[in-house]
Amino acid sequence: MSAKKLLVDIHTHVYLPRYASLLRSRTSVPRILSRTTPSGDTEDRLLILDHEPSGGRPVGPQYWDREEKLKFMDKHDIDISVVSTANPWLDFLPPSTAHSLAQDLNTDLESYCSTSPLLPSSSSLNRLYAFGLLPLVPSIPIPHILSTISQISSLPHLKGVIIGTRGIGKGLDDPELELVWEAIEKAGLVIFLHPHYGVGNGEEWGERENGHVLPLALGFPFETTVAITRLILSGILDRYPSLHILLAHSGGTLPLLSSRLSSCIDHDPIVQHCLKHDARWYMSKLWFDAVAYGSEELGFVSDVIGRAEAFDKPGSSASVSVSVGGEGRKKGSERILFGTDHPFFPPLNESEKWRSVVENLEAIDGVRGWDQEAKDGVRGGNALALFGLS
Amino acid sequence: MSAKKLLVDIHTHVYLPRYASLLRSRTSVPRILSRTTPSGDTEDRLLILDHEPSGGRPVGPQYWDREEKLKFMDKHDIDISVVSTANPWLDFLPPSTAHSLAQDLNTDLESYCSTSPLLPSSSSLNRLYAFGLLPLVPSIPIPHILSTISQISSLPHLKGVIIGTRGIGKGLDDPELELVWEAIEKAGLVIFLHPHYGVGNGEEWGERENGHVLPLALGFPFETTVAITRLILSGILDRYPSLHILLAHSGGTLPLLSSRLSSCIDHDPIVQHCLKHDARWYMSKLWFDAVAYGSEELGFVSDVIGRAEAFDKPGSSASVSVSVGGEGRKKGSERILFGTDHPFFPPLNESEKWRSVVENLEAIDGVRGWDQEAKDGVRGGNALALFGLS
Repeated sequence: MSAKKLLVDIHTHVYLPRYASLLRSRTSVPRILSRTTPSGDTEDRLLILDHEPSGGRPVGPQYWDREEKLKFMDKHDIDISVVSTANPWLDFLPPSTAHSLAQDLNTDLESYCSTSPLLPSSSSLNRLYAFGLLPLVPSIPIPHILSTISQISSLPHLKGVIIGTRGIGKGLDDPELELVWEAIEKAGLVIFLHPHYGVGNGEEWGERENGHVLPLALGFPFETTVAITRLILSGILDRYPSLHILLAHSGGTLPLLSSRLSSCIDHDPIVQHCLKHDARWYMSKLWFDAVAYGSEELGFVSDVIGRAEAFDKPGSSASVSVSVGGEGRKKGSERILFGTDHPFFPPLNESEKWRSVVENLEAIDGVRGWDQEAKDGVRGGNALALFGLS
Repeated sequence: MSAKKLLVDIHTHVYLPRYASLLRSRTSVPRILSRTTPSGDTEDRLLILDHEPSGGRPVGPQYWDREEKLKFMDKHDIDISVVSTANPWLDFLPPSTAHSLAQDLNTDLESYCSTSPLLPSSSSLNRLYAFGLLPLVPSIPIPHILSTISQISSLPHLKGVIIGTRGIGKGLDDPELELVWEAIEKAGLVIFLHPHYGVGNGEEWGERENGHVLPLALGFPFETTVAITRLILSGILDRYPSLHILLAHSGGTLPLLSSRLSSCIDHDPIVQHCLKHDARWYMSKLWFDAVAYGSEELGFVSDVIGRAEAFDKPGSSASVSVSVGGEGRKKGSERILFGTDHPFFPPLNESEKWRSVVENLEAIDGVRGWDQEAKDGVRGGNALALFGLS
């Protein structure tokens, strides 16, 4: 089997036992609580937000048991998974707890991966790698974040960090985080930016009972969009051009809004001169998971990446004179990476393949303008390159 | 000149003199205030939201003087404009004022259009048509909205209504509005759904000074997305399948989120059986303005419309087996309509063409897979059909 043909899942979550225990010990969200079902069984429910509808979601061994992760991978022919702790990470903890738990969980993650099976086709690659955790909480001393970055770089199976959108309380454009970006860039770690809180509140969702749909389908991608837009506007991507930022859910809605963003920047006297490039240019500096649910969506995201370099100059009116042919779309595919969002969105029937996974793969397969090489890249080759797995 | 070759602008705003006077008389937002510039000139500024950055935006005759609108149209070869009152419409008024002002402004709009020049190529078409206003404010008696719908249907140059996202205070999925949708459908009026408040608040935008960029580039399209999603989830499009809803800014972010929305609906026990169709199907029941700022964006929106009919059944796993060839993209173009957002985003230099307009036209011209017929449709033919102008 050629390394290029591997299927690599870069969006797949865990709550390691140490983390699950913490959630069980808590009396407020986030927490795991056990309850008895009408049929007399015991059921664990995960509550991650206040006022969560439907009493939270069921959780089970697929969140903490490595054998379950490997079984899931085998069922769907996934060769390698780069796992990450699911939201809300350490966001809710006081600084000292966050710092020590980050270190402990990073050690746990290293062990989870380093003792995982080797790929049959390789003498050196394991089947599991991971994103580490940083103690990104209010009032944390910055050196504690920096020392955790050092720790992660020293753990060979940890290839990046997963972060939420709040930074140390004021978002990712907080000037206090400058040294953090510098250290992450220097360490060559991939940043996986993932939503948790949503943008939009109860009032905006209205009074009608729509379950989780509005915060999950809309609020989550909005949150990612706001976070990466603020990061771009703060100039971080200009100052740290070698940062590797991977956006959950194909960048939320940024791909569809980058041209409007460019127009709004160009017409705003306060912002129009603050960036080195047109807003659309930054699309070619980011990576996007393929959790976009459709071939047209993936094709569009790759168009937006593929055209980006034409927007080198800020205020460029090249806007629409860029004709992205098949080459642009193919080039854009190099920054899109397969993901499953496991263990979320499980199937109703345990024995079947996960619809979310099958559909993500079908979506990749169905993109017009992607040849087999492009599809193989999205399925695994791009991940191997980004994470330096070879 | 063949009628098919007309350039029709369906997203272009006015504050008629009666409305501008009201804004001048006010001491809280929304208001127009006059101030003296450092060079001693008098300048009108429009403030439409509390805490608006940069002291509001300059406003002038282009908002209320019909000659300015016609000059703008001539400069850009726009044959017909379907004008609409700009946000925040009547949202801030007490019910009785809103009701009487809606009626007066609708009469003003009819006169503004009916006395406008005739198209040189036609003996029957004027150069100006309009969306009317409804008194959509809290505590309004529903019969007052219904009587305004009747009034608008009786005014021959008013072809629809422009509405915001709050309905009579509880959003567009408010059961109280049922008779309103029924009456609008029966009258055959086009609904132009437009944002005003934004989704996302100051906390989410962060502390960094980014001017208007975040609320305008992101918050506006988020708001439209939430509103139309709530409308879909409420079943309104199932119950009133002949409603003609036109979405500002190419539907905000709905085109990129409709597949995720479908997945979230299918996985949510509360919502999964409430709709007649898969969420993606509704894209083919909506219209989208072409204010999307790029050819790739427009092409993608037309893909999403063009594939929609394959998602007839709810929970259909056809998701990604739909291969949208050039035909799908071309078919989707039939629901996309040119717009300018005039008089917002003016050029810095008065004598030049408006970049926003030029770029919207270039974006239409550059869409791969749209032949000349499709482009002519988006430039004007689709609008003539939707508004029954012939």
